[in-house]
Amino acid sequence: MPNPLDPDALQQGADRLLAWLHRYHTRIESHPVLSRVNPREVFNALPDAAPETPQAWDAIQRDLDDIILPAITHWQHPSFFGFFPANASGPAILAELLSAGLGLQGMLWATSPACTELEMKMADWMARAIDLPETFTFAPESPGGGVIQGTASEATLIALHAGRKRTLARANLLDTPRRDRPELILYASAQAHSSVVKAAMIAGLADGPEDLANVRLIDTDADLAMHPDALEQAIRDDLALGHLPFFVCATVGTTSSLAFDPLAPIADACRRANFTGWLHADAAHAASACVCEEHRWMLKGIDRFDSLCFNPHKWLLTNFDCDLFYTRDRAALIDALSITPEYLRNSASDSGAVVDYRDWQTPLGRRFRALKLWFVMRRFGLEGLREHVREGVAMSERFEQLVRADDRFEIVVRRKLNLTCFRLRPEPNESSDQTGARNKRLLDRINTGGRAYLTHTTIPLADHPSALVIRMSIGGSTTRMHHVEQAWELIQQIADTLR
Amino acid sequence: MPNPLDPDALQQGADRLLAWLHRYHTRIESHPVLSRVNPREVFNALPDAAPETPQAWDAIQRDLDDIILPAITHWQHPSFFGFFPANASGPAILAELLSAGLGLQGMLWATSPACTELEMKMADWMARAIDLPETFTFAPESPGGGVIQGTASEATLIALHAGRKRTLARANLLDTPRRDRPELILYASAQAHSSVVKAAMIAGLADGPEDLANVRLIDTDADLAMHPDALEQAIRDDLALGHLPFFVCATVGTTSSLAFDPLAPIADACRRANFTGWLHADAAHAASACVCEEHRWMLKGIDRFDSLCFNPHKWLLTNFDCDLFYTRDRAALIDALSITPEYLRNSASDSGAVVDYRDWQTPLGRRFRALKLWFVMRRFGLEGLREHVREGVAMSERFEQLVRADDRFEIVVRRKLNLTCFRLRPEPNESSDQTGARNKRLLDRINTGGRAYLTHTTIPLADHPSALVIRMSIGGSTTRMHHVEQAWELIQQIADTLR
Repeated sequence: MPNPLDPDALQQGADRLLAWLHRYHTRIESHPVLSRVNPREVFNALPDAAPETPQAWDAIQRDLDDIILPAITHWQHPSFFGFFPANASGPAILAELLSAGLGLQGMLWATSPACTELEMKMADWMARAIDLPETFTFAPESPGGGVIQGTASEATLIALHAGRKRTLARANLLDTPRRDRPELILYASAQAHSSVVKAAMIAGLADGPEDLANVRLIDTDADLAMHPDALEQAIRDDLALGHLPFFVCATVGTTSSLAFDPLAPIADACRRANFTGWLHADAAHAASACVCEEHRWMLKGIDRFDSLCFNPHKWLLTNFDCDLFYTRDRAALIDALSITPEYLRNSASDSGAVVDYRDWQTPLGRRFRALKLWFVMRRFGLEGLREHVREGVAMSERFEQLVRADDRFEIVVRRKLNLTCFRLRPEPNESSDQTGARNKRLLDRINTGGRAYLTHTTIPLADHPSALVIRMSIGGSTTRMHHVEQAWELIQQIADTLR
Repeated sequence: MPNPLDPDALQQGADRLLAWLHRYHTRIESHPVLSRVNPREVFNALPDAAPETPQAWDAIQRDLDDIILPAITHWQHPSFFGFFPANASGPAILAELLSAGLGLQGMLWATSPACTELEMKMADWMARAIDLPETFTFAPESPGGGVIQGTASEATLIALHAGRKRTLARANLLDTPRRDRPELILYASAQAHSSVVKAAMIAGLADGPEDLANVRLIDTDADLAMHPDALEQAIRDDLALGHLPFFVCATVGTTSSLAFDPLAPIADACRRANFTGWLHADAAHAASACVCEEHRWMLKGIDRFDSLCFNPHKWLLTNFDCDLFYTRDRAALIDALSITPEYLRNSASDSGAVVDYRDWQTPLGRRFRALKLWFVMRRFGLEGLREHVREGVAMSERFEQLVRADDRFEIVVRRKLNLTCFRLRPEPNESSDQTGARNKRLLDRINTGGRAYLTHTTIPLADHPSALVIRMSIGGSTTRMHHVEQAWELIQQIADTLR
């Protein structure tokens, strides 16, 4: 059998694939942003079993063009304004190529020291780039440090799990049988990401999203940020019932509307309520903006939190997956996750002098993802990252102005950073459901047209407890001002036809 | 700011990086397999903060050569025989490049239908390639299907979680408060991978690896496979105590010694004991061999299991991460993991006609990993994959012969597939600890020499309940017979010096 890693064959294949990618990136605006295929179209276009014998690149490339490309929603299209951005960039793509080409495993320090130590250093670089306190870094004497997780969902699960064990240990409950322990209670705002409740489910603290026996979803204010007083009261109520509050997740920029739970007041509320658990900040999207000094207010108080995560894979030009998870208490993390079978023992780990990242995450194996951050931060420089964020904010400011200038529309919550939530205003004699349906129709027409893609959410507004609103999320790698202006013209044109 | 996805810049960077990779793969044998750096060497060689302004590729490349390369343990080196293989291959590397270049998200069907449907099809291809029953595929009427998880650890956690909810539902316990429910008990062999206990920890069923209140590690036989009778008795005992057995994990090829828990007898034992829970098979490494008919005996009985996972990223030329997780009951999986906030709702999902893989895993976001399986299966064909496995087995047979021909050594458990566990025989008047220390010395000398890399484990042998043995794991992408023979010569030479 020929060498599966034959350098010449890899080179030749890469040449062809790079030419394909060059064409894709050059012509990306020629595709409808949102794919138009029907369910099972791709599935049914492919044979039911793998080929017995090798096939040529030509055949694969044909299928890429004919079957795959029409079935892609183009996240790197400059007019992709859905969800949050998922920034790809040249340097990050190359780092993925390098990581795959090296084909190494970073589960232990010893299985490739560079994989672990570059990641430690990149976590430190990014911590300093967003001005985190040094206790979240690997600086000498610091009890903390950072790690790359796949997603914020995984980071939240790990934080919750570490918080559970540390809280039980502090309460001297680890020797008490699980059923004799008080109820463990976790807290997040009613606007928190679904991953918080999903983490509770996986951790065994909720049977499903409706099961709130151990989960408290705290009320929010007019700006959809958590009420610290409501949190304090909830913790006090649970303590009065003999429960054990163990985990508070504050959201720094909610997915629906970029609401910012106030960190310092939340830490104050926890202290007043004698909370002994773990404070986690889910800043998945927004903390990337903290590379710019003017946005760092959102992390005021983070020094009193036990952990924080945010995703350079959203808005910092680092391809998915790259969630940075920081803790001030790495010992608690390791205590909650470490398990060392003999086949993983080695002298470096036994010495205690190294970091073994397998003890910081659910999986054992791990890719060399730190290369992405290294390439991105070196090739763009922090100045480049700041510029990217500032352009996204500037385009959003412009979009907000445009919306405000059209009487038919309204901005429904204060715009923050790169996210504008807006809708067609309720019309006289229209029910709130009709308003929602009209906005949904507007959104569907935008998206089926293929020239832009936006998504929606529901939030509590005066006329409806869960009013449908349209999210304009700006910050894609390739998005420029004229794409935003064109999208707005399109929205206006479609609104005209809805009359 | 220049376009971060500029096609020409990507092309130029790729040309340089590919040349670097070509050199790396061509000269890989010139590096010591196991890195020789000391703790913090890489960390301290790098600046403490990211650069403010962009840096040139030249500077990065210099650091790659000077700092990173010496700190890599070369998993693709042909003389890497540690752990299990982590096969990289040209087609899989290119697929990672393409996945990064497309930069899309597969969390929902709608966010890129091709990402989901190619994955469904690739799961089917691989199911058929290893001859799984059709109930594990997306064939019409099938209740099952497959999904790519990052690692077997993540798959086990998901299986355990789904098993918990389904078992509780079947017992009509979901309306009972958690503390009033019977104790949930899970079972695995004493030789099972550490990820099973780690999953129990994260799922809230164990405080740590020592906490076995809800975990039963079942005795194994002389070949280190689970005793079905012991499992049956354990389940009966727990039921008699009023507990609720909910999860059995059988290991198809243990990490220590490739022991095969017998699936059909385990399913029989569960039936006899009136087990109502979830049967999961962790075949992480071994099931890849089932692309060859002669190895399919190991999965006999899998039709009675609820789920199975295995890792093409180990021995099937598909770069990490690529764990295939199959279930016969996708509804149970989705029921245990689904949570749909408004911002993820869309008409395709609401129609029920599509698969949304976010409900099959812990994370929300997901990369386009199916491309790896597609490229690998098409470029090598199933014949190529079979040849790769058969070469690995043939090299292992040869290695076993070589060991058996040298009286100083012994094969300590039956060799299976590509893993040979061996050691220097105990000498007269030597304590068992001394035998272990002598073998450890042998292993350390092999590894520090840099010409080959092997790892160890401990298993129960006649002279010691956890005797240290050396694992020779063959099956790297580039390993050929002469590398195995050279490794054996090296082992013999070092054994000579230990006299």
